[in-house]
Amino acid sequence: MSTIITIGRSFGSGGGFIGQAVGKKLGIPFYDNELISKVAEESGYSKSLFADGEERRSLFSMSSFFSTSRLGVIDSGYVNDNVMFKIQSEVIRSIAEKGDAVIIGRCADYILRDYKCLSVFISAPEEYRIQRLMKEEGLSEDDAEKLMRRKDRTRQTYYNYYTFGDWGQASNYDLCLDSSVLGIDGTADYIIDFGRRAGLIK
Amino acid sequence: MSTIITIGRSFGSGGGFIGQAVGKKLGIPFYDNELISKVAEESGYSKSLFADGEERRSLFSMSSFFSTSRLGVIDSGYVNDNVMFKIQSEVIRSIAEKGDAVIIGRCADYILRDYKCLSVFISAPEEYRIQRLMKEEGLSEDDAEKLMRRKDRTRQTYYNYYTFGDWGQASNYDLCLDSSVLGIDGTADYIIDFGRRAGLIK
Repeated sequence: MSTIITIGRSFGSGGGFIGQAVGKKLGIPFYDNELISKVAEESGYSKSLFADGEERRSLFSMSSFFSTSRLGVIDSGYVNDNVMFKIQSEVIRSIAEKGDAVIIGRCADYILRDYKCLSVFISAPEEYRIQRLMKEEGLSEDDAEKLMRRKDRTRQTYYNYYTFGDWGQASNYDLCLDSSVLGIDGTADYIIDFGRRAGLIK
Repeated sequence: MSTIITIGRSFGSGGGFIGQAVGKKLGIPFYDNELISKVAEESGYSKSLFADGEERRSLFSMSSFFSTSRLGVIDSGYVNDNVMFKIQSEVIRSIAEKGDAVIIGRCADYILRDYKCLSVFISAPEEYRIQRLMKEEGLSEDDAEKLMRRKDRTRQTYYNYYTFGDWGQASNYDLCLDSSVLGIDGTADYIIDFGRRAGLIK
């Protein structure tokens, strides 16, 4: 059995670092947005996504089953987003099928809902996240707050659009944690402990 | 330092049983809706709530600060609900001030937001909850599902109205758990472990 852990997170909660720590502690690969894009690129996906002419048209026909969009509007932007989501979903499934993985964001909990995996969501109080962003990114308090709200809104919209779900709602996940209580390392240890108790981590 | 644990829960998730198990394992009192009402009654609250005439009028003036209701409508029903919430809040605060406690539901996480306590939310997949309700309450599948949806809606409406928050949203709580993964006893043990790691349980 593979160990698959998906981690969703509110912006600035340190969820990415926690995922990295979980991967490191367990000695298993960790995939964030950048690495998922890289895997997609290596599979020859991204190249065609940004192609013109013939390739572009074939992509449009490839995404024809999205024509009953929930928004009722199809323009090249939506089609592109939908194609991108389909590609990312395929990449995430191929990662899960290859073996152990910690996967951050990208609706991985939803994409892998039929796989045996541990799904986690990391949040933290707004003041804590703003302080972290000020320190980590060297932002002013005002900029940190604006960035946090904008990024949270983007993640929520993305998740809710593709999963028909409710981002950050406890009922979507096996385990949700406020990272400010146990910190990055302590939260990673506690997630691993849950996975072991649940028999989801070897 | 007292050990205060608040537990919110979706209907049929076993959150009440988990809270009871946590209280038992730690040897500290457990309060559910029934016990909170009993404490209120012993404090002489409930009696006056259901009183007529003078007492009723004094209750109305007592609740005059609710006159800018969020709904913009004040009728005796709303006033009564608001008074009831205020009384319950006072009872919950007095329980927390008295010492160790596990408190189930009643927006206790929100009411005690300025206290040092561990706030937990318990959910579980719908199919699991329906199965539990069929077994525990001897209901048909259809009745179990209807009851679950109705009770969830009531809890959500109540919580969101009084806390201005979003019931079951991970960011409200320190820790959220799907009770179907570790079961009643295993989930109780895991909550206690979190509280100990966080220094919130003696």
